[in-house]
Amino acid sequence: MTAAFPHHHILGIEHLSAQDIRALLDLAARYAIQNRSTKKSCDRLAGQIIITMFFENSTRTRTSFEIAAKRLGAEVINFTASASSMNKGETFSDTIHVMGALQADGFVIRHHENGSVKLASTLVSGAVLNAGDGTNEHPTQALLDALTMERHKGKLEGLKVAICGDIKHSRVAKSNALLLKKMGANVFFFAPPQFAYDGADKLGAIVCSSMKEALEGSDVVMMLRIQNERLAVGEFAMTGEDYHAAYGLTHEKLALAKPDVIVMHPAPLNRGVEITSEVADDPKVSVIFEQMEMGVAVRMACLDVLLSTNS
Amino acid sequence: MTAAFPHHHILGIEHLSAQDIRALLDLAARYAIQNRSTKKSCDRLAGQIIITMFFENSTRTRTSFEIAAKRLGAEVINFTASASSMNKGETFSDTIHVMGALQADGFVIRHHENGSVKLASTLVSGAVLNAGDGTNEHPTQALLDALTMERHKGKLEGLKVAICGDIKHSRVAKSNALLLKKMGANVFFFAPPQFAYDGADKLGAIVCSSMKEALEGSDVVMMLRIQNERLAVGEFAMTGEDYHAAYGLTHEKLALAKPDVIVMHPAPLNRGVEITSEVADDPKVSVIFEQMEMGVAVRMACLDVLLSTNS
Amino acid sequence: MTAAFPHHHILGIEHLSAQDIRALLDLAARYAIQNRSTKKSCDRLAGQIIITMFFENSTRTRTSFEIAAKRLGAEVINFTASASSMNKGETFSDTIHVMGALQADGFVIRHHENGSVKLASTLVSGAVLNAGDGTNEHPTQALLDALTMERHKGKLEGLKVAICGDIKHSRVAKSNALLLKKMGANVFFFAPPQFAYDGADKLGAIVCSSMKEALEGSDVVMMLRIQNERLAVGEFAMTGEDYHAAYGLTHEKLALAKPDVIVMHPAPLNRGVEITSEVADDPKVSVIFEQMEMGVAVRMACLDVLLSTNS
Repeated sequence: MTAAFPHHHILGIEHLSAQDIRALLDLAARYAIQNRSTKKSCDRLAGQIIITMFFENSTRTRTSFEIAAKRLGAEVINFTASASSMNKGETFSDTIHVMGALQADGFVIRHHENGSVKLASTLVSGAVLNAGDGTNEHPTQALLDALTMERHKGKLEGLKVAICGDIKHSRVAKSNALLLKKMGANVFFFAPPQFAYDGADKLGAIVCSSMKEALEGSDVVMMLRIQNERLAVGEFAMTGEDYHAAYGLTHEKLALAKPDVIVMHPAPLNRGVEITSEVADDPKVSVIFEQMEMGVAVRMACLDVLLSTNS
Repeated sequence: MTAAFPHHHILGIEHLSAQDIRALLDLAARYAIQNRSTKKSCDRLAGQIIITMFFENSTRTRTSFEIAAKRLGAEVINFTASASSMNKGETFSDTIHVMGALQADGFVIRHHENGSVKLASTLVSGAVLNAGDGTNEHPTQALLDALTMERHKGKLEGLKVAICGDIKHSRVAKSNALLLKKMGANVFFFAPPQFAYDGADKLGAIVCSSMKEALEGSDVVMMLRIQNERLAVGEFAMTGEDYHAAYGLTHEKLALAKPDVIVMHPAPLNRGVEITSEVADDPKVSVIFEQMEMGVAVRMACLDVLLSTNS
Repeated sequence: MTAAFPHHHILGIEHLSAQDIRALLDLAARYAIQNRSTKKSCDRLAGQIIITMFFENSTRTRTSFEIAAKRLGAEVINFTASASSMNKGETFSDTIHVMGALQADGFVIRHHENGSVKLASTLVSGAVLNAGDGTNEHPTQALLDALTMERHKGKLEGLKVAICGDIKHSRVAKSNALLLKKMGANVFFFAPPQFAYDGADKLGAIVCSSMKEALEGSDVVMMLRIQNERLAVGEFAMTGEDYHAAYGLTHEKLALAKPDVIVMHPAPLNRGVEITSEVADDPKVSVIFEQMEMGVAVRMACLDVLLSTNS
């Protein structure tokens, strides 16, 4: 079934069709069930070696990919950028080229520069999976968010999804907007002025001028993580408390959404900044930890379609 | 046989019965033999994923757990706290909750706060093994020490075990005292005044007022590691040399013990502080490296009883 | 076939015979083919545990060993020196002794002191593979270089190999000279005055007084990495640009070599210092990334002859 997946790499949502996304979500849904069973692991990727290369630290995402790969029987090697030859002045291209020469089967790459993962994919013969590049794309996050939405809403088509917070710097917002648009959902962005993003049109997202406008009648509210170091600078400089008062998600604000709204967050949480603990920990609305769980299933699906040879 | 192990987690010696401890030591003794054979590995935990989470650095203990897990056929993922989202302000509970959402089968956790590992066990569905929490417990160390004693003394019952050094901060001393008491040995604590511990009664240990009193007629002498940063502070501040002169184990002091005494140390050694190299390296008395070896066997036994499904 | 390998450890080229080297190169050549096939992995070392201990950072070499071990079905544990008990004052011998007590099957060790890996081999019962010790030896680098040369030149015997750069500090130069001499090649050293090495005679290498003399008529040119911190000191202190002008490899200088010369470098590259990008990236002469690829094959061969029991 997955034999038909028409891409050698997954570099972003942009280059995937609705049909590709459908195939990934369906396969991931099956892996989600397997991951709650007593026999979670299989040998679909036995004998294959996957290198994770995280030039930005992210233990949770790296671990999620590592579990996904190991559940499929693959071996994983963690390349740690900080300990690497890049400290000795080696270029990014040379580092990737060297890793490619080692003939690993797959590469999971996160890097702080937009387009760097795409560049990497031209330098190796193995499959490349983008684990986040700069402010550009984070396709597995968008896929795990979509899978989580489908589990609760039954479908993506026609959903109103409000994405609130630092849109400007968020690859999560961008990949989500691209995916949701392709699958027929309606995406509404609300960003505080210092985090306004001028590319919403191209993504097919509707820009709201107030958080109220974004939240009203929404099926899904996705809050973005605010990096504290970004709050403190520029003409809009403010504290975490100020930010929370103005833009943090509370039960009060959430009352604007549909009664069966679900709340999402890519984590790690800044409790008391972009979201209050009362909402984050409310099992009636929060699906934040389910997102983590779906992350493993989605990454298994992506690795499977890229690397399995017996499909 | 191990099917009857009645606990989902191993959080300390305190909650284990003498029968539980007996089962673990007997299984570990068999693994100790297997680990010296040519076929050391098996597939009892094949397809299972264990995450090690060391919020305190300890390469030796982490490696010992990793070897134990791999000898049983499990996959291991090392979560490194320093590279994690905790640097981004995430709470301990959120970090554990996230790792739990990834549906790993087992968690081996070390943390600097007493009770933190027990807290973690309430946040995940997988089995939790305490690899040391604060000054509270370090159950696998006590088990490996007991296994080492049994190999040399044939039994634990009736042994006089002297534990000397920084009792106050030592989870090793506490878990050992709890275990040895449950198994019928007699535990004697001697601590220099700055490291006196007022909970010996509750552990069933006898407090000695001199090192001589502790050592006299002992079957086992266990020296605790002194952290140099702890020597330099407070009213009893002293140098490593001063400490060694007053409380370090030498052959001269050891002559007070039984002729067939064995000397133990949880390592790493501070040679010339709590113990002289002449004793640590004397193959007639020192079983320090055998303790390391038994560590793998004991951890295999613990992982086996918690995680094996075909037992 | 490999049953006859007569060594328990591989500590350097010095203790290997021409016949040992021939066996390793032949086996590695077969693994190089396997590594380009669709079925790269096998289970020759299934159930075996190999610990990598890199007291000097080198992500590329460690990763190469890790891939090699995993391609053979072994489990790998990465001991990270910086996070270890050595920070707590433990001696190198105690650290090695402890790791040995854990009963791993093999140890891949890199250390900044000459002879330290040999010392380690006396402290453990498992097989030890030297991944570089100080300025002494780096046997797998010499083997991968030899394999790369054979692939292009058909043989080692009679080749003129020019090794240029910081000979003094280079374990790569030393292991290469030893291996090439044993296999009948002719080695020419050229070092800038600050990097002159007075042991060339013992290695059987011919010292050239100019780079021209080394390059003329050579079949292979191997450029050594210059560590920038070494350029800035002493009576010969110079910038990277100055170094490049005087001793960097360019197409112009390379014209002195045979028309079918190949250019090698142990990497990471200092582009524009010891070598210009035009040469490093010229597919007609540069075999630098092929060296990386052969590294995996050679390390598979070394691990195989040391650890496989069914050969």
